[in-house]
Order: sequence, then C-alpha cells, then structure tokens
Amino acid sequence: MDPIVIVGGDAAGMSAASKFKRERPERDVVVFEKGEYVSYAACGMPYYIKGSVEEFDDLLQVSPKEFIEERDIDLRLHHEVVGIDTDAYEVTVESPAGTNTQSYGQLLIATGARAIEPPFDGMDLDGVHTLHSLDSAKTVHDAMETESPESVAVVGGGYVGIEMAEAFDEHDVDVHLFEMLPHVLAPFGETVGEKVETHLRDEGVSLHLETAVDGFVGDDSGHVSGLVAGDTTYDVDLVLVGVGVAPNAELAGEAGIELGETGAIATDEFGRTSAPGVFAAGDCAEARNVVTGDPDYVPLALTANRAGRAIGQTMAGDETPVGDIAGTAAVKAFDLEVARTGIIDEEEAREAGFDPVSVTISAPSRAHYYPGAQKLHITMLGDTETNRVLGASIVGREGVAKRIDTVAAALHTETTVQELSYFDLSYAPPFSPTWDPVLTTAKVLAGKLD
Amino acid sequence: MDPIVIVGGDAAGMSAASKFKRERPERDVVVFEKGEYVSYAACGMPYYIKGSVEEFDDLLQVSPKEFIEERDIDLRLHHEVVGIDTDAYEVTVESPAGTNTQSYGQLLIATGARAIEPPFDGMDLDGVHTLHSLDSAKTVHDAMETESPESVAVVGGGYVGIEMAEAFDEHDVDVHLFEMLPHVLAPFGETVGEKVETHLRDEGVSLHLETAVDGFVGDDSGHVSGLVAGDTTYDVDLVLVGVGVAPNAELAGEAGIELGETGAIATDEFGRTSAPGVFAAGDCAEARNVVTGDPDYVPLALTANRAGRAIGQTMAGDETPVGDIAGTAAVKAFDLEVARTGIIDEEEAREAGFDPVSVTISAPSRAHYYPGAQKLHITMLGDTETNRVLGASIVGREGVAKRIDTVAAALHTETTVQELSYFDLSYAPPFSPTWDPVLTTAKVLAGKLD
Repeated sequence: MDPIVIVGGDAAGMSAASKFKRERPERDVVVFEKGEYVSYAACGMPYYIKGSVEEFDDLLQVSPKEFIEERDIDLRLHHEVVGIDTDAYEVTVESPAGTNTQSYGQLLIATGARAIEPPFDGMDLDGVHTLHSLDSAKTVHDAMETESPESVAVVGGGYVGIEMAEAFDEHDVDVHLFEMLPHVLAPFGETVGEKVETHLRDEGVSLHLETAVDGFVGDDSGHVSGLVAGDTTYDVDLVLVGVGVAPNAELAGEAGIELGETGAIATDEFGRTSAPGVFAAGDCAEARNVVTGDPDYVPLALTANRAGRAIGQTMAGDETPVGDIAGTAAVKAFDLEVARTGIIDEEEAREAGFDPVSVTISAPSRAHYYPGAQKLHITMLGDTETNRVLGASIVGREGVAKRIDTVAAALHTETTVQELSYFDLSYAPPFSPTWDPVLTTAKVLAGKLD
Repeated sequence: MDPIVIVGGDAAGMSAASKFKRERPERDVVVFEKGEYVSYAACGMPYYIKGSVEEFDDLLQVSPKEFIEERDIDLRLHHEVVGIDTDAYEVTVESPAGTNTQSYGQLLIATGARAIEPPFDGMDLDGVHTLHSLDSAKTVHDAMETESPESVAVVGGGYVGIEMAEAFDEHDVDVHLFEMLPHVLAPFGETVGEKVETHLRDEGVSLHLETAVDGFVGDDSGHVSGLVAGDTTYDVDLVLVGVGVAPNAELAGEAGIELGETGAIATDEFGRTSAPGVFAAGDCAEARNVVTGDPDYVPLALTANRAGRAIGQTMAGDETPVGDIAGTAAVKAFDLEVARTGIIDEEEAREAGFDPVSVTISAPSRAHYYPGAQKLHITMLGDTETNRVLGASIVGREGVAKRIDTVAAALHTETTVQELSYFDLSYAPPFSPTWDPVLTTAKVLAGKLD
C-alpha cells in the first residue's frame, strides 16, 4: 500500500503525520521537508530577537529525531517536492541524492507561506531582512549583536511589524515603523490602531503612517544605509520588511489543483483539494470563515495545527472537519494587548451581505475600586437583520486576549448580541467588573439593534 | 396609577429601578431600603479589610442622592417592608415615621441574602463577626486596627473564607482557616481545592480541614479568646464566620408566595413569582440553571444585576427574560486564580440525568518558551450521551477567570465537547500556547467521548 505523503514539515504537516501514526501505526508516513527545521515556533521569532526567548533551540518544539525515532515518521530533511502528478498519485522530489519520484496513497500539501518581498529598490542590500524562516530570525538576532545598528526601520505595521518594533526597541536602537495605510494593525480596526499608535509613540518608536516606502540605499560595501520614502531618506542601518505573507501555492497550482480567489489552495470542510486523495492545510490553504461561510485566507498557527490534526484523522479513516476559522488573533504591542475576531469592518460586513451596526465602549478590566484596573476599549459589530454577533476587537493593558475568546465562541455558535449580553461570565473584583466589558458592550449594542 | 415598588436597594433592586425609569420616566418608582446603603459593592468588602481598597466610600457605587436626584427614583432609606398583601397589591412599611401601607402596580422583591449564623456556642462574643453588610465590613476593618489581633480564625473555606484569609494575612496576623469538608472551595472541585490548599499553606495559613467548629470561648470582658473544635481550643482573638448565605425569603413566604426547593423564591424565566404582578430577583430568588434547565440558587452579583435590569425592562412593558445562570464564579486566593462554571461534580451530573466523563489536564498559560508561563490545571466534564460540555474548573496563577468564560459560552449554547475543541481561540506567545489550554482539554475529553 502506498504511503501517506506530506509535503512540508511544519505545524500542519507534522500535526497530520503525528495524528495519522497514532491512529494507524502500521501505515507508512513520509514527510518531505525542504529545509532543516520541522515543527518550529515561528510566532516566537520576534521574542527570540527581542531577547526574551534566550535559546534558539527553545523555538524548536519537537526535534526531527523525536519524530523519526519515537513517532516512527519517515521524515526526510532537505527534500523538496518539485512536482505532483495527481493522475499517477506521485510526487517528484529533489534532494542531495538527486531527483526521485514517490508514490502516495493520500497526499497532504502543507507548504506554508512566505514573507512577501515587495519590489523595493535595494531589497538585496545587506542588512535588509524579512522574517521568513528560523534562519532569517537567527540572522537578524545575530546582526543585532555583531553589527550593533543604531537606527532600525520596520516596514509594515501588521502584527509582525508591531512585534518587531518592540523587539528592536529592547536593544536601545532608534526604531522607525513605516505603514502605507492610515493606521497600524488594519485588521484590528481603527480604535485599536489609534491606541497602539499612541502607545508606540510613548515608547519612543518613530511612526510614519500613510508613508509608502520606495526602497533602500546602501553604502560602498553594499550594506543598507538609508530608507527612501518620497523625498525623504532616513538613515537606517538595519531593515526588517514585514508586509505580509503569500501562500506557497505554486506547487499545487502547477499540478492543476484548484486555487481559491485568495490565491491559496481551495479546500472543502475536510481539507480536501480538487484532486482525489490530495489534502491541503496550513498557511498554503484556504479555510471557511465561520461568520460568512465563505472561503478565507488567514494564515495563523492554530488553524494550521488543527487542520493538520483533523486531516491526519481523516486520512486514517475517521472523517473529521478541519474546523472553521473566525480570524481570531492577538498581539502584544509593548504594554498593550490587542485582539480581534470575526468581522470588525462595516464595509467588509456589508460586502458579506450583512447590515452591520457597531459600538465602541470603554470599561475597566477589574472592579473600578480594585487596584490596577485598566481601561479596555471594545468595538463590537452586530447584524441588524439576524441580530448575530459579527465580530469584535479589544485593546487594553490586561485581560484582552482571553476576553476575545468569548466573542469567538459566540461566532462559532451563531449567538445573537442579546444572547451574548446574558452569558453568565465570571466576576470577581480582581478580574472583572460585575458586568464583564464584553457583556457591557453586547448590552449597549443590543440597545442599538432593538 | 400605582407606582412600581421595589423592596431592597442593592444590586437587583436598583438595577430594576434604574432600567424602569430610563424606559418609563413618567412612572413613579418607590424603593424601600431598610438600611442606609444602596447599590454597594459587597464583593469588595474583603479587599477593603485587606487594605487594597483604601476608602470605604469606594465600595459605594452610586449614591442615594444620585438615584434620587439624577435618576428620579423615590428611594426611601431606613424603610423596612414587613408585609405584602398580594391580593390588595399593597406592602406594609415600617420606618422612623411609623408604620404605613403603600399600594403597588408591580412589585419587585429584592431582599437579598444574609450570612448564615451557625448555632455555635459563643457566636455573640465580641470579636466574632460575619460579613453580612457594609457595616460589618467596617467593624472588622476597624477592629484590625484598634484591636491589633494576633491570631485570627476564619470559619468556612468557601470563597468568602478564602478571600478573608488573604485579607487577614496582609495584616501579619496568624490566620487559621477551618473547613468541615475534606477540601476548601468545594463547588470548584477537588483539583482546585488541593492546589489552593497547598498555596494557602505556602502563604502561612494554618489549614484545618475536616474540622467541625463547636464554638468560641471568651475572656472576662466577653471578648473571644479561643475557638473550640473537638478536644482542641485554638487561641484566637478575632473570628470571621463565613459559612455561606441564606436567602431573605421569609417576607415572600409569609405572603404566600411560592418558595423553591432551595428555599429561595421560585421564579419563572421573566423573574415572576407565583403572585400576580410580583417579581423577585437577586440573592433572594432562584434562577434557571442553563445546564440542567432546573431551578437553582447561586447568589452572585452578576445574576442579581442582570435579573434586576431585565425585570425593570419587563415591568416597563418590554418582556425580557432574566437569563439563565451557569454558576460561573472566580476567586483570587493569594497568588492563585480559580474559576468554575457549570457542573463539575460527576455525582451532581448523574443526579441531573447526565452520564458524565471528565478529564483533568495541565497546560501552560503562555507559549512554553515565553517567559512567565504558568501551569494551568483544567478539569472539564462532558456528557457521553449528548457530547455536551457540562462544566469546567481552572486553577493557576494567570489567565484563569477569563478563560472559564469560553466554557461558560459553550454551556449557554449547548456546544458539544468536539465543537468546543474546534473553536478558533486567540493565540500569541505572551497570552497562550497555540492550542489554548481550554481547547487542549476539550480535545482530550473528546477523545474519551468518541
């Protein structure tokens, strides 16, 4: 019987391999990984560069050795799959040993995503980095020590940009953050963006909003020395470009497997692609948005992990849906916590067929009289037709990330705003006001929906 | 038209009064409060005694003046309702001015609960306290300063007992905690109880479990000097008895209004009692448990607030359910946070007609490599027949209270364990592992339900 073949050895791939082997230990699982790391903590890279994660090895969750010896997975590092023949159930693999083919019974494409490299002048200068792999994290980490930069530019105000601004700031360098849009963290909405911007400035970050970067200039040695934006050149000696990621969907596309409108691999609720016996999961694949019911592309770690696990189970014979996504995300920005879930943007909600109403309220994180209470700002969207909760964002100094989870739960269960406002949530003075801020927001929003 | 009459000026009563007046400003609302405080933060009393809430007035949320002048509520302090004539739609009220009657159009009984005073010998000695009112909190607070006790006994290991042990410990006195049952915080389950016990001992509290208190002995001046439990007398010079509360349901009972099996006032989903036009809410009333669908008595602040508000709306003509309760609760115990929701006890689940399975797992509060990650211990119950989530408890040093809210949301929406395990919850290394511990627990429990 042909083995299960998995392309890519990170979160989705190794979750699937591990789950499959637990269910069907007698079957062979071959994982091809083109690099040398598997199952690594990509989200920890900014904290490694910041210095709060001390050891590089701490980012490696499970070693190749453990996968091979303890989990009995045929993991092959430095093996790149360069072609898929979906008729012949066969992949072509390049490795140091040459080019070979491998038959598969079922195939999982888990090729991940890559950092977008915009066509800036000077992208190839020394000192201009993206954060696309553990190796690149190590390069930036080491550069902070060996090159001792004085002024660092971060291009992109998404979550990687925000986390990297904090990471660089820890090294006592001047930090410039460039964002093309009017606000940082656009997917988190304007309230969050503005609060984060004020806080970044308070922390000494030089913010350049609505500023398109044209490129970089270098010194005689070919090392970056400046960032050019319009008529201005900023002196910088290290650059981190973090303007988003693109799915590694070319391998699937060239094999004739259907891609979605987002450019990622189209999948059904079990992670199946258009080709028989071929699945896709993780940062290369679409998933279904629980609010809209439509395909969406939100490449985040949990989505990859659980889809991989579910597909491992399905391939083992126990059909398991990969689960819908709510676009739930959280980011730390210095002393602020921000989080989001569902649809926050009214325009986006209208495009999805909803008639949205939103409110933004402020409420304390603890009882007002309890020491250390912090102000939370919550925006929540509801649909006037169905009264459903559509999404929310929260920003504040504590108790943000896990508060958004209650709203995420409401999205998964198609809860109305009124119902949410009557959930029996926890209260004790050190942890919450009597009405949790999520309840208060739902209560106010329900008043607008009545 | 006869006014709306409300008996009791705390959370439920004043929430109802305020909501009704917002909806129907032209109608009269009379609130009779037998004491001098309204709308006070009873849950803050331990923190006032501890010293973390500095001003007594911080516990007063809205002043009588504000209710009267700004919200136009006819609030009468020092007025005690001593009888209800449900046929005549009339209450009898005693006040410094004498005894009078007052007709009502609709009536809300919001008489709250009182601290249980067990029949211990010596309950009336000086220095033996319960925490039944703001006045009693002030008495204990002042006694810590004027009497400078050296050894304090807390009788009862429920949440008030735990919070008071922490409060007393802050004053550098010897603290003895007595609990009849094998574990403290029984409604939170054994895992929570054991972790809290270890932590209390680490903090220097002398724990006396499975120890029935017989009473107290006093010195010549009539002040408590010892606590007697079996053959042992412990030297103590201040005692706080916190063994639970009982609903103030006598007024309703004597008026022929139906009480439930719990002893609290029976209500329907709109807070209506068995008497026409008479509602009950807060610590004197039952509410419906969202897991069992049966009447339950869990006197907590949020339940009182939201039921009061809903009844205010219903009395104003807009029928609004008071909302079901999940028994969600959170407590701080020194540096530990504990929380619960739903049914945690397997025996209790079986009595409610379920066939429960439970798991207890440990998982970190943050990514394993992120500094400060704390171990959380989560117990979750599921029903083998319906696969529904039945309840959960969590104990740990951070991120506990608001994590239980996700499970509470699952209870309100009758979510299955499998569905919960696929909720898209927030992840970022400072706030959670990739799979939030709630997801991991649900995943493991789902494995046992399959």
